[in-house]
Amino acid sequence: MLPYKNLLFIDKSSHVAVFKQIAAQLIKLIQEGKLLPGTGIPSTRSLAFDLDLHRKTAVAAYELLIAEDWIISVPRKGYLVSPQLPVVKPRSFNTNRKAAYETEPGFQFDQLQDIISPLSNVLKTDLVIDDGFPDISLLPAGAMSNLYKRALDEHALKSMASGWDMKGSPDFRTALCGFLNQTRGLDIRMENLLTTRGAQMAIFVAASLIIKPGDKVIVSEPSYFFANTIFEHFGAELIRVPVDDHGMCTDTLEDLLSKHRVKLLYVIPHHHHPTTVTMSKERRTHLLRLIKAYQLAVIEDDYDYDFQFQYDPYLPLASGDHEGNIIYIGSLTKVLGTPFRLGYMVAPEKFIHAAAKKRMLIDLRGDVFTEQVVSGLVENGDLTRLIQKANKLYRGRCHHLSDILSSELGDALKFTRPGGGMALWLKFKADLPLAKVIGKAAPMGLKFTGSVYAEGSRAKYNALRFGFASQEEKQLEQAVEILRLSINKLR
Amino acid sequence: MLPYKNLLFIDKSSHVAVFKQIAAQLIKLIQEGKLLPGTGIPSTRSLAFDLDLHRKTAVAAYELLIAEDWIISVPRKGYLVSPQLPVVKPRSFNTNRKAAYETEPGFQFDQLQDIISPLSNVLKTDLVIDDGFPDISLLPAGAMSNLYKRALDEHALKSMASGWDMKGSPDFRTALCGFLNQTRGLDIRMENLLTTRGAQMAIFVAASLIIKPGDKVIVSEPSYFFANTIFEHFGAELIRVPVDDHGMCTDTLEDLLSKHRVKLLYVIPHHHHPTTVTMSKERRTHLLRLIKAYQLAVIEDDYDYDFQFQYDPYLPLASGDHEGNIIYIGSLTKVLGTPFRLGYMVAPEKFIHAAAKKRMLIDLRGDVFTEQVVSGLVENGDLTRLIQKANKLYRGRCHHLSDILSSELGDALKFTRPGGGMALWLKFKADLPLAKVIGKAAPMGLKFTGSVYAEGSRAKYNALRFGFASQEEKQLEQAVEILRLSINKLR
Repeated sequence: MLPYKNLLFIDKSSHVAVFKQIAAQLIKLIQEGKLLPGTGIPSTRSLAFDLDLHRKTAVAAYELLIAEDWIISVPRKGYLVSPQLPVVKPRSFNTNRKAAYETEPGFQFDQLQDIISPLSNVLKTDLVIDDGFPDISLLPAGAMSNLYKRALDEHALKSMASGWDMKGSPDFRTALCGFLNQTRGLDIRMENLLTTRGAQMAIFVAASLIIKPGDKVIVSEPSYFFANTIFEHFGAELIRVPVDDHGMCTDTLEDLLSKHRVKLLYVIPHHHHPTTVTMSKERRTHLLRLIKAYQLAVIEDDYDYDFQFQYDPYLPLASGDHEGNIIYIGSLTKVLGTPFRLGYMVAPEKFIHAAAKKRMLIDLRGDVFTEQVVSGLVENGDLTRLIQKANKLYRGRCHHLSDILSSELGDALKFTRPGGGMALWLKFKADLPLAKVIGKAAPMGLKFTGSVYAEGSRAKYNALRFGFASQEEKQLEQAVEILRLSINKLR
Repeated sequence: MLPYKNLLFIDKSSHVAVFKQIAAQLIKLIQEGKLLPGTGIPSTRSLAFDLDLHRKTAVAAYELLIAEDWIISVPRKGYLVSPQLPVVKPRSFNTNRKAAYETEPGFQFDQLQDIISPLSNVLKTDLVIDDGFPDISLLPAGAMSNLYKRALDEHALKSMASGWDMKGSPDFRTALCGFLNQTRGLDIRMENLLTTRGAQMAIFVAASLIIKPGDKVIVSEPSYFFANTIFEHFGAELIRVPVDDHGMCTDTLEDLLSKHRVKLLYVIPHHHHPTTVTMSKERRTHLLRLIKAYQLAVIEDDYDYDFQFQYDPYLPLASGDHEGNIIYIGSLTKVLGTPFRLGYMVAPEKFIHAAAKKRMLIDLRGDVFTEQVVSGLVENGDLTRLIQKANKLYRGRCHHLSDILSSELGDALKFTRPGGGMALWLKFKADLPLAKVIGKAAPMGLKFTGSVYAEGSRAKYNALRFGFASQEEKQLEQAVEILRLSINKLR
């Protein structure tokens, strides 16, 4: 209930009757949208008490408002602002005076460069191809629902509310630690682990501790767009090292390291984003040698490790011998789906301690509730089963999409089928500019939200990521058919 | 399953039999904790295939391991690492070589100053007095559980997974916008609203857009510790303005503004943290005038607005005339409880747009899942009912605590009973140093986790926040009794 005492001013010296003053001011509140249609307003008794008036005055004001259809009287509910209001735009809060928040602030602030132009014209009927996201229908919804219910138990809530570990909930970190050691051959303890809101926050925090304006940061070319944006945000000068079919070119890297003082290296050795290339064993060995030789700070972004369709002998670089210089970053978002943002950072304890302090400045207590729920999924084996199920399904989709792309569009684009992950990297031939292909596909109901397209004018490649994991085979066929028609129109 | 192909190396030129080489290396993996007790290992057929060996060799290796109790064979499950392992510390991952993450990194990074020393010695049996947190048992757990279940529906999940609004989920912002306009007399549209992970992230993001190293920022003295820490983190020079019984002294503020180029003002006009003082109407009017005169950037932190035990005529400063210069920050965490971190920022659209870009760098997609659930609570009225219920309960607890403190400890400490909120600000007399009082109370099972205590050596006041909202009356009595005994021991 609004504090009417503060909103209604009565001028007893005015020659306008007090009940009319009240009515006029209530009408103004309604017109300004501060009292919305259907809102309850105080009883005459309570209004009279608040404003120190005789009750009859309040009654007179309300009678006037009822006569003019501004308010109605409803049995057992009292007075409500009339649901059918004679106002122009009741929900837009338009007022005659300019509202405080409709102006621009008078002070200076960083406006930041535009990062992406999110697709605004997606229709409900569109077939939307994403950057490589999971099929959210695989989520064990029943089990999760039970875990949420259990987490909402009073005892569980009290324990979450009273505990506070600046590195993340201990239960979750214990579960995650076991999971990472088991699946990735890491050799870490809880003290090496910080939980974050998605891998993005882990990259942000790590970069913020390492990069000073003007520092040189090596990234692959191409690389994960949002990581580059973070590094540039902190004032880094990006040096780009090409990616070929064996991953980042470590010879070029060695050459650069010998010539420049480099502050940080950002690598995605497994299913590189956006190209899906996995770094070869030789390059990995070379890279580990360089990391030790230069005591180079490295962020290894391993967003896609859990999705391997075949026997894949590559453990993360982080499981190798790097003398504590690799900050290993991953996320459960690719397993659980984009609505669930659970990232993590693995590093030596001293770095994690600093990162935890930084995270606390940004996100005081973290997401202990979701962490509690998801640690249940790890412990009861549902997470592992979900990954196994997903791999089986995604493998089929990957092969199916690759087959139809090869047979239908082999003369229009090239790609290498990856051994895992959730997307193909489709390189269109030069005579088929991506913007034009997409432009033809859109009216036929096919939209792309993946990387590169989202980068807009900054996209450097005539290529896009085609996420197959979230699409059924029929949808994949439909998408390829629309692509084929679009390309035919251009040739 | 670990990639054994990469973990096991067979030296065919060695005079050690291949099956023994395999067994020895598996033992090492078990000893190093890379294979934990109870873990499944590949079948002999699969291992032989992966390592390109005759199956009999794999069988021989496993027979050796079984004989030595390293692994067991379980019908229908295959081979498992023995659950009763002859290793020293199977869960600590101790190895002979130093693990990569046990060293310190070789590169340089910001270590950040220590922020707080979280209380590490809290026992389960302790009575813990917090900074002023809600009683989490009031949460409508059943309704929330249903909302979680509904949000886990495949259709709902798909819609969350595909949508992406960089300012936060549109459903939640619509609901929150209505709630804020209704309860706070704000006059905002969805475009003025950004959701964040707790008020902390909102303060962090706002400050990051405004403060450059060396900038002057005015805060109250005392002020909210974590906000000051953020401002100092961005290199601000803090100028402190005293708080008296009417709130921040605006005369001192005016004087400072006339002498210094001030970049930002941080105020908590309603139930100031930590002192619980509410700023008077005269000061508010003065402050709004100063904001307009200097076009001063202001963060209004209104963490506690929803908790008013009596008719309280104070709307936020943000509802007044400030020409778009107030960034209004709040949170639903104080309503729902600390496990649920849902903050928000209200500002002119242009500022919100920049803040949304910054938030995207930190936390790409935000917490659309929890936002979906909580928008349900707002829409079905549960949030409002929760606030009403809480106010009634907390009012009783506030009065009860005030009464017993006055009667039992009136000669040891002073406080002013606030008209709302969740904590009292207890000022101990000078002959009772807080650290000593707390030191005496701890062995009797009374611990304090509130502000000031957490600030450790940086605490400047012989005072602490005593959160009453989360404690039943019996617990409040118990706490006061222990305080009384502690104080008696010191006198």
